[in-house]
Amino acid sequence: MTEPLDVAKLQRRLAEFAAARNWQPYHTPKNLVAALSVEASELVEIFQWLTPEESARVMADAQTAERVTDEVADVLAYLLQLCEVLGIDPLAALDAKIDRNERRFPAP
Amino acid sequence: MTEPLDVAKLQRRLAEFAAARNWQPYHTPKNLVAALSVEASELVEIFQWLTPEESARVMADAQTAERVTDEVADVLAYLLQLCEVLGIDPLAALDAKIDRNERRFPAP
Amino acid sequence: MTEPLDVAKLQRRLAEFAAARNWQPYHTPKNLVAALSVEASELVEIFQWLTPEESARVMADAQTAERVTDEVADVLAYLLQLCEVLGIDPLAALDAKIDRNERRFPAP
Amino acid sequence: MTEPLDVAKLQRRLAEFAAARNWQPYHTPKNLVAALSVEASELVEIFQWLTPEESARVMADAQTAERVTDEVADVLAYLLQLCEVLGIDPLAALDAKIDRNERRFPAP
Repeated sequence: MTEPLDVAKLQRRLAEFAAARNWQPYHTPKNLVAALSVEASELVEIFQWLTPEESARVMADAQTAERVTDEVADVLAYLLQLCEVLGIDPLAALDAKIDRNERRFPAP
Repeated sequence: MTEPLDVAKLQRRLAEFAAARNWQPYHTPKNLVAALSVEASELVEIFQWLTPEESARVMADAQTAERVTDEVADVLAYLLQLCEVLGIDPLAALDAKIDRNERRFPAP
Repeated sequence: MTEPLDVAKLQRRLAEFAAARNWQPYHTPKNLVAALSVEASELVEIFQWLTPEESARVMADAQTAERVTDEVADVLAYLLQLCEVLGIDPLAALDAKIDRNERRFPAP
Repeated sequence: MTEPLDVAKLQRRLAEFAAARNWQPYHTPKNLVAALSVEASELVEIFQWLTPEESARVMADAQTAERVTDEVADVLAYLLQLCEVLGIDPLAALDAKIDRNERRFPAP
């Protein structure tokens, strides 16, 4: 029986993965945000020439679906590693941000 | 008593937030990946002129720490909304990606 | 009478501007490409929620037109400064690239 | 004898290249800024794990130099095509921006 997936568990796996390959010296916050933005752009690349309608159907093609899922994983990987080195709790950060946005953009 | 934070709960909050403001028509996958990459670049902007050493100390300054945390939240917000509209489970995607990377880059 | 604008003249202005403010130590190639990508994303931000049709009309609004023109200038500024520190001739690089693309993607 | 390279000539070559392949329908401003930001990120990718010192020596390696030059060409290609479809003169835009920056950041 495996424990359910959660953010902390994935951060542990990512940290062990990087440590086993001696990659931590490369994982400065500056480098991690660069890598995060590069992965986000690889997602954009998949969509750049699509119409809005085509973009809504990307998951219907198995190969594109796999590519999108893979890039989503890469973005999340760098985001979680960044949070780990900076001591940020990403879920709490987002929860607090939604609170602030609810005050900033009151629903009509 | 509040239930603990998790990804599904945050996705629910984000979906309700967007629905209450009629923002869903803007949330095509193409637009969401663009917004994701813009937020990732706002993180890069904080670090762009810093040395690697300065980048490692960003959380020591309260104002910068808040700015970084805020941008992390924005990146995560768009990533989760993208996953929601595409039907991707981000944690499972990352777990599978680490599995693949372990085979692709065997530890020494 | 002023000499006509060209890339070399603008690179000279940019170099003098940076030198007068002692900004050269910040202008490593790594930092300049980061800044370039941040400015490119500021352009994306202007367009991120627009439909293709709306995006084709951005110059009709004077304020948006000014913002777009300003961001174009920022992208070009960092691109020219990067080329300057790396010794790349941007126009020759593009001319050679179009030659290669003509061989790679023959016109039908 | 060939005429010297200039921005207008390159814009003409790019426009003819796109027209010959019927690519103009894809070249909305929104798509071109996305492509521009993707190419800028491909430049970032080359530098993302380098130290500042390593980044200053990228042109010493012939293969990396070629890769950097190629990405610079791609960024410029999309920037010039964007300017073409929007009717922006990129050199004049930058010249005006440097004027504004000289007033905004007076030299010490």
